[in-house]
Amino acid sequence: MSASPLLLELVEALRCMPGIGRKSAQRITYHLLQRNRDGARKLSRALLDAVDNIGHCERCRTFSEDRICALCQSSKRDNSLLCIVESPADVYVVEESGFRGLYFVLMGHLSPLDGIGPEDLGLDTLEQLLAEGEVGEVILATGTTVEGEATAHFISEMVHKKNLRVSRIAHGVPMGGELEYVDSSTMSHAIAGRREL
Amino acid sequence: MSASPLLLELVEALRCMPGIGRKSAQRITYHLLQRNRDGARKLSRALLDAVDNIGHCERCRTFSEDRICALCQSSKRDNSLLCIVESPADVYVVEESGFRGLYFVLMGHLSPLDGIGPEDLGLDTLEQLLAEGEVGEVILATGTTVEGEATAHFISEMVHKKNLRVSRIAHGVPMGGELEYVDSSTMSHAIAGRREL
Repeated sequence: MSASPLLLELVEALRCMPGIGRKSAQRITYHLLQRNRDGARKLSRALLDAVDNIGHCERCRTFSEDRICALCQSSKRDNSLLCIVESPADVYVVEESGFRGLYFVLMGHLSPLDGIGPEDLGLDTLEQLLAEGEVGEVILATGTTVEGEATAHFISEMVHKKNLRVSRIAHGVPMGGELEYVDSSTMSHAIAGRREL
Repeated sequence: MSASPLLLELVEALRCMPGIGRKSAQRITYHLLQRNRDGARKLSRALLDAVDNIGHCERCRTFSEDRICALCQSSKRDNSLLCIVESPADVYVVEESGFRGLYFVLMGHLSPLDGIGPEDLGLDTLEQLLAEGEVGEVILATGTTVEGEATAHFISEMVHKKNLRVSRIAHGVPMGGELEYVDSSTMSHAIAGRREL
């Protein structure tokens, strides 16, 4: 196929995005060239701006173009609550739920096989944060995978040593979910975590 | 949500791509920032290179960064066959089938309601091409929509006036397709277009 080399390069470059295979990349390429060159220019600019300027907040480690992110700088947050999540995307989800405390983003989870230890998750930074004395309760919202659970366990031990309260978000039947389709592991969590009415 | 403004801008910019909604755009943004900044930089470059340099071949109107595309320049093609398609993406599909003639890309189809007439499809350029006298047969591979059929009909009249052969690609049951799932319009084309064995 003797198509334009720049076109083929763009098809190839688009595949750095998760969920975009060769066919989608081709469709996107033709669409942008034929109908939305302005959009493509803006996207090019936005990509470069983002990767060149977005780093990590020095306090909570989430993505931020400032040294300290807007959330950590805000005076409207409840400094006594610290929610620990695995990724910046998780911050977004917890934030949507109405949580108004602060966050700490691990940027991963403990995974000895992949060589990811406590220092890679910034747990020394977390230790300093807890030593400041403002945090009263740590809420663990790491994933429900084996690694997520192990990470939650590791951090809970660390927080206990400081005589602070530590909790884990509830696992159970999702809202709007039909019991019929709930897996047995979720159901056993839902039953074990039942609340008296 | 007080996320990084540059991050939100990137999420928004990614939505210029067809099939990418807000959720996918977020997932892509986090993925690129967290795991593939090099890929994002390359993509930014490839987008700009493509939209700034890719124009249309003066002969066949397909996407090309050269005045005349590689295909039209090639000496290995059969100049007597000219396949007419609606978009550069279609060239790719016909090319994959092993066709070795030349192409003419309409970059659309006749659509009076949208104000797309013969001049927008470069039919004057096509007329010149046919007048050069090299083309012996025009193969119409426009779409199977009403507009695609109307476009094919319009061009076939034009070619007939020049006393050249003109043909339409066959429509019928796709290879590997099960008869059970074939729609009635396709089946009626398949029966009308049957060949004696």
